[in-house]
Amino acid sequence: MEYRFSSRVSQLKSSAVRDILKLTQGTDMISFAGGLPAEELFPVEAVSEAAQRVFRAGAGALQYSLTEGYLPLREQLCRRMADKNMFVNPDQMLMTTGSQQAIDLLVEVLTEPSDTVLVEKPTYLACLQVFALHGLKVVSVDSDEHGMIPESAERLIALHRPKLLYAVPTFGNPTGNVWSVERRKKLLALCQSNGIPIIEDDPYGDISFDGNEPIPTLFALEGKAEKGTVIYTSTFSKTVAPALRTGWAIGDSKVIRMMAVAKQAADIQSSSLDQQILSQLLGFFDLDAHIKLISDSYGERMLEMHRLLEQASLPDVTWSKPRGGMFMWLKLPEGLDAEALLKAAVRKGVAFVPGSSFYADNPQRNTARLNFTHNKGTRTEQGVARLVEALGEFTARS
Amino acid sequence: MEYRFSSRVSQLKSSAVRDILKLTQGTDMISFAGGLPAEELFPVEAVSEAAQRVFRAGAGALQYSLTEGYLPLREQLCRRMADKNMFVNPDQMLMTTGSQQAIDLLVEVLTEPSDTVLVEKPTYLACLQVFALHGLKVVSVDSDEHGMIPESAERLIALHRPKLLYAVPTFGNPTGNVWSVERRKKLLALCQSNGIPIIEDDPYGDISFDGNEPIPTLFALEGKAEKGTVIYTSTFSKTVAPALRTGWAIGDSKVIRMMAVAKQAADIQSSSLDQQILSQLLGFFDLDAHIKLISDSYGERMLEMHRLLEQASLPDVTWSKPRGGMFMWLKLPEGLDAEALLKAAVRKGVAFVPGSSFYADNPQRNTARLNFTHNKGTRTEQGVARLVEALGEFTARS
Repeated sequence: MEYRFSSRVSQLKSSAVRDILKLTQGTDMISFAGGLPAEELFPVEAVSEAAQRVFRAGAGALQYSLTEGYLPLREQLCRRMADKNMFVNPDQMLMTTGSQQAIDLLVEVLTEPSDTVLVEKPTYLACLQVFALHGLKVVSVDSDEHGMIPESAERLIALHRPKLLYAVPTFGNPTGNVWSVERRKKLLALCQSNGIPIIEDDPYGDISFDGNEPIPTLFALEGKAEKGTVIYTSTFSKTVAPALRTGWAIGDSKVIRMMAVAKQAADIQSSSLDQQILSQLLGFFDLDAHIKLISDSYGERMLEMHRLLEQASLPDVTWSKPRGGMFMWLKLPEGLDAEALLKAAVRKGVAFVPGSSFYADNPQRNTARLNFTHNKGTRTEQGVARLVEALGEFTARS
Repeated sequence: MEYRFSSRVSQLKSSAVRDILKLTQGTDMISFAGGLPAEELFPVEAVSEAAQRVFRAGAGALQYSLTEGYLPLREQLCRRMADKNMFVNPDQMLMTTGSQQAIDLLVEVLTEPSDTVLVEKPTYLACLQVFALHGLKVVSVDSDEHGMIPESAERLIALHRPKLLYAVPTFGNPTGNVWSVERRKKLLALCQSNGIPIIEDDPYGDISFDGNEPIPTLFALEGKAEKGTVIYTSTFSKTVAPALRTGWAIGDSKVIRMMAVAKQAADIQSSSLDQQILSQLLGFFDLDAHIKLISDSYGERMLEMHRLLEQASLPDVTWSKPRGGMFMWLKLPEGLDAEALLKAAVRKGVAFVPGSSFYADNPQRNTARLNFTHNKGTRTEQGVARLVEALGEFTARS
C-alpha cells in the first residue's frame, strides 16, 4: 500500500546532528558534532553498584511505577533543586525521558497548532523539531552574548502574542553563552507582565568552569512554582550518563499534572529501572564532587581547543570562550557557508554542526558549533588540524 | 499567571486505571484493576546478571545511542520475530518506550487531526487517550469473541473512510478474546483493499495457556513489511519486566523512518541502558522457557479465579475464560452500572476497572475487567470474596 504521511511529519527532516552521528559511527572520523559527554568520565562503577542495590531490593523494583516518576528520586531531586534556590515539592515535578520529552510535553499542553513560540537566535536544534511537529510558528528574538535582547523580545511579543518562550539561558546550546542577571530579570518581567510561560531548558547549568557563584536560574529569580511563569527542565544526561535517559521538569502543579496526563498517552512512564538506579546512586555517590570533576576536565578541554584555534591564526575566524557547558561557537569569514565547509571537513575526517541548523529563520551561514567535551589530547589536536586544513583549502578556493 | 491549556489536553481525563493504581498504592486493597504482571515471577537475578555484563563492557555502554534503538537488540529481536513468521530487518524496526509509545508515534506520522480511526468494541483504554490527544475521531467496530465483525468494519469504512485501524487481536485487552484466523484474514483483506494501515498491538501474544499452535499475527498473515498494511508492536513489559520499559514496532522501513524522526523530537531515544540489558539477557537467558513458566502460572491463576467465580454462583453474571493474556471480562446483570459497583467494591477492599472505560462510544456499563495475573492463592480468594460481597449488597439494594 501507499502511506499518506501526516503533513506535520512530512515537512520535518531528520536532525542534522543525528544524521551526522549515524554517518560518523565506526569510522576514523573525529567528531566535534554531537553533544556527547566524555565516556571515560562516566561513573560506571558507581552506576553498577547502584543497579546492584536496586536488584537486591527485590523483584518489586521491576514492576510498573507511576507516570509522575519514582517518588524517592523526586524527593531527592527536590532537595538538590532547593540547593539552587528552586523550591518545589514532588507534585511540582515530573520525571521524563530526557529533558527533550519535558519540552515536548510542555508544548503539547500549552499550545495549539499555529501558535507562536519565541526562541533565542540561534537556539537548540531539537527544540525546533518539537515546535515544527506541533505546528508552531517559531520566531527568533535577537540575541547577543548576554542573552535575548529585551527590546527585540518586547517588539515581537507585541507583534505575535506568543504562547511560549523557550530558552537555554546558561551555557546555551549552540553558543555556550550565559544570560546576564540583568537580562534574566528583564526577560522574566516581560513574560510575567504579558502572561507568557517560559521553558527554561537547563541541561548544562551544572557544568561551570570558573567555579564562581552559580548564576541564578530564571526559576530561582521568580521564586515560585505555583502560578509561576517559568517551567524549568534539566537532565542527568550530562552529569551522570545519557544511557539512563532521565530528565525532569518542575513548575506549577497543575501544569505538571497536565504534562503527566499527556505522558500517560505518550509512553505511560519512563524507565523506572533507570530512575531507581539514579535514586540509589544519589544515596551513596558524591554527585557534586563528580560534577566538579567533569566540569574541570571539560574546562581544560575547552581551553585546549581554544589554544589550538588560536595557534592556527585563522584570518577572520572568531570563536567563543564559554564559561561552561559543552559547545564553542565559531564565526567564519563573511560569505563562507559552513554547510559547504562541513562536506570538505568530513573528507578530511572531522565533523561539526553547521550553525545554520540552529536558526529558526535567517540563518547566519558562516557559523559552526564545535563540541569540546567528547575528545581530548591528540584527538582534539588532530581534529582541529583537519578542520584548519579544510578551512584553508576551502577559503583558498573561494 | 493563569495558564491556557491546549484544547486537546483539556478534554482529556487522567486514565481511570492509573488513578486507581494511585488510589490503591500502599493500602490493603486487593487490586484486580491494573494490568500488572506477577512480581514474584520477574527474572530479577538474570536481569541483574545482564546488567553486570553491560557495565563490565565499559563506560561506552552509558553513552548516547541511536534513536532507532540498540542495533544488537534489534538484530536479536528480528530473529525472534522470524520464529513467529514475521520477517524483518533492523531498518524495519524501531525500539520504543513500551509499545504505548509505538502507538503514539504511529498515530503522529499517519494521521491528521479529525481523521477517523477504527477500534474494537471494547478496546484498550490508553489507546483511546492517544487518539483523543491527536484529535482523532474514534469509531467502534462491532466485535464479538472471535474479533471484529467484518460486515460492521466494511460498513464503517465506507461511511468514515478511516485513516487507521487499531486492534489487539490476540488475548485482547480488556476482553482476553482471540480473533479467529478467518476473521483475521477478512479484516486484513478489507484494510488492504481500502488502503487502511492496521496497528496490530500484541503485548500479550506470547502469554498462551493452552500451548497450542500459536495463532498467526496479522503481520505474519500478510507476510511482508515493505508497503505492508500491518505495523506490528509488542513489548518486553509482560515477558521480562515493565521497569525496563522497552517495546518495539516493525513494519515498512519508510514508516519506521518517519516514526524515528517523530521520536527524535519526542525524546531523542529510549533508555539505551535498558535495551543493552535486554540484549545481554537474550544472550544467556532462556526467555522462551521463562515465557512458558509465566504462561503456565497465569493459566493457573486464571482457572483459580474462574473457579472462585463459579463457586459463588452469581445470578446473571458471566465471564470469559481466556486462552491467554492477563484479563478476564465480566458481564454483570443488565442495568447494573459497574462504575457504581466499583465504589462499593473499593469500600470492601477490592478494585477492578469498570468496562465503560474501554468503549469509544455507547459503553456497556454492566461490564468489568478483572486482572488475574497479579494476585494468587488467598489474595485472589479474598479479592473475589470481597467482590462477591459487594455485588451481593449492591444487587440487593438496587
